[in-house]
Amino acid sequence: MKKTTIYDIAKELNITAATVSRALNDNPRISEDTKKLVLATAKKLNYKQNKLALALKSGKSKNVGVVVPYINRNFFSTVIRGIEEELNPKGYNVIISQTHEEGKKEIDIVQNLLNAQVDGIIISASRQSKGNDHFKYVLSKNVPLIFFDRKKEIEGISSVTLDDAQGAYQATKHLIEQGCKHIAHMTIDLSLLIYQNRLAGYKQALADHGMEFNPDYVIALQSEIVAGKDAAKKLMGLPEPPDAIFSATDLGALGAIQYLREIGKKIPEDFCVVGFSNEPFTQFMELPISSVDQSPLLMGKTAAKVFLEQIESNDVKIEKNVVLSPSLEIRKSSQKTLG
Amino acid sequence: MKKTTIYDIAKELNITAATVSRALNDNPRISEDTKKLVLATAKKLNYKQNKLALALKSGKSKNVGVVVPYINRNFFSTVIRGIEEELNPKGYNVIISQTHEEGKKEIDIVQNLLNAQVDGIIISASRQSKGNDHFKYVLSKNVPLIFFDRKKEIEGISSVTLDDAQGAYQATKHLIEQGCKHIAHMTIDLSLLIYQNRLAGYKQALADHGMEFNPDYVIALQSEIVAGKDAAKKLMGLPEPPDAIFSATDLGALGAIQYLREIGKKIPEDFCVVGFSNEPFTQFMELPISSVDQSPLLMGKTAAKVFLEQIESNDVKIEKNVVLSPSLEIRKSSQKTLG
Repeated sequence: MKKTTIYDIAKELNITAATVSRALNDNPRISEDTKKLVLATAKKLNYKQNKLALALKSGKSKNVGVVVPYINRNFFSTVIRGIEEELNPKGYNVIISQTHEEGKKEIDIVQNLLNAQVDGIIISASRQSKGNDHFKYVLSKNVPLIFFDRKKEIEGISSVTLDDAQGAYQATKHLIEQGCKHIAHMTIDLSLLIYQNRLAGYKQALADHGMEFNPDYVIALQSEIVAGKDAAKKLMGLPEPPDAIFSATDLGALGAIQYLREIGKKIPEDFCVVGFSNEPFTQFMELPISSVDQSPLLMGKTAAKVFLEQIESNDVKIEKNVVLSPSLEIRKSSQKTLG
Repeated sequence: MKKTTIYDIAKELNITAATVSRALNDNPRISEDTKKLVLATAKKLNYKQNKLALALKSGKSKNVGVVVPYINRNFFSTVIRGIEEELNPKGYNVIISQTHEEGKKEIDIVQNLLNAQVDGIIISASRQSKGNDHFKYVLSKNVPLIFFDRKKEIEGISSVTLDDAQGAYQATKHLIEQGCKHIAHMTIDLSLLIYQNRLAGYKQALADHGMEFNPDYVIALQSEIVAGKDAAKKLMGLPEPPDAIFSATDLGALGAIQYLREIGKKIPEDFCVVGFSNEPFTQFMELPISSVDQSPLLMGKTAAKVFLEQIESNDVKIEKNVVLSPSLEIRKSSQKTLG
């Protein structure tokens, strides 16, 4: 079947194609009667407007781009679900891209989403994010840009983040309350704000409980099980090995636990471990792992709401920074005492 | 800085905007000298072509849409990684959408991707996929469409799938070789070809080894841990309970194992379990779970290659059906005997 064009409608009604186009786009120069006639004829002829051409005209594609480092982390996929739950009912479609933590890919993706005329971009910065020009460019195009979890400090750009310091504080305080005396901290990349904040929360909890901070107890690793194992091995080789680990990631915590069990440590009796992110596997391990929950669903919904506010107010430069509270999920890996 | 338009170039050269546009789009009606002049001036004035407008003209956006039921299954995220590894170096950008298994959403997404002028769609059908019209429509638009894993039988549409029957056969045969006499099968949705094939492979292995097929031993469940637990409970309540389960999903296998341990069954001594998909958690459980690996990375790379072949040959209707071989990863949950 040949596709109906505005020329077919024009011919049918004996008016110009320009008039048809204006009528379809609700141009005030066209009378209501003509508009009705054009719409009825368009329907009769099964005319479908090219949504992309419309997007070019109106600047609204009803697509929102979501950019994450990786789609296969429960945290990110749950944030995306939150965004979809909020935006789908409003007629927005969510297009997802992953940066694999690469700065160049992040720039390409942002440019690509702009070229695809997205109505907004909701992004968690990649670990190797390069500069802020691509983010400022989005703003200059009057397209809402909202950071979640991993933000950059840019004037006029909104964000939804977790109070990472508070989460780390809770985890460390909990380990202290379990009677742990030498608490190590596994981190990832201290160039990222979230890991800086987790370290700060850990240090603050130690300080508030009169415990000394030992730099040897802080190890940076990749977010991998193997790295967690290696780090645990290194920590246990110290002259004064720790009796607990607060890991800034769940996979790191898992690797540490695997090593500790290999060398015969009893968890939680001899050694306590707490992770961060509350990835599903932490629950269904035979030894369930305590972890800090980051409220990803709420984070996604909140980021989507900030986007909707900006779209509705037609002002992308109202800066709004929402900080969500974490909650510690205490499980067997750190539960020496009940209560 | 004001954006340079084709009108600025036209003014600079004292020619019409239409000529500039034709020159930029390499129209044969424009002389080579004029083209060179226009390009040089465009460069001088820092003119940037609107990629989307270009896409509308050329029909090439360099975006490829990938549609999956869920992004947070290791199988799907790994297929996507395979697609990206193959397509990114060729300058294609991958845009991901998830259907959450909803048929209506699948239709919307496909339409939306077409509106966004994607150069191709690589899709795993949703569980509630409705009819084939939206798929045939893609083909009618001369846009390559490739199914992976979950395919629909549509003439002219290519696919990359796993030999699911073979995987199920391997798993069941392995359980028989371990000495299991009463092997149950947990499945998901027998309206999907992949699950039909897994059931068929299971039955074939039983038949080839002279074991009777017992319909009571086949239970359909949602891909969830709780459903796996319930199903195991039901199976263990049969007059003649099974001594092994081949589950068509890993989460089902995990739920079954949780229940079996609760009632004091020793795994693998008393009861063997094999899953399907080789999700990462199957390896890092304290009791690692045997599972059928689906070669997701290879599946993604192969689907991407089929897309590239179609784009390069400019023929979206060469049907190519690639079937990959599964491999059984034997782990503790089913390893009564070594070797």
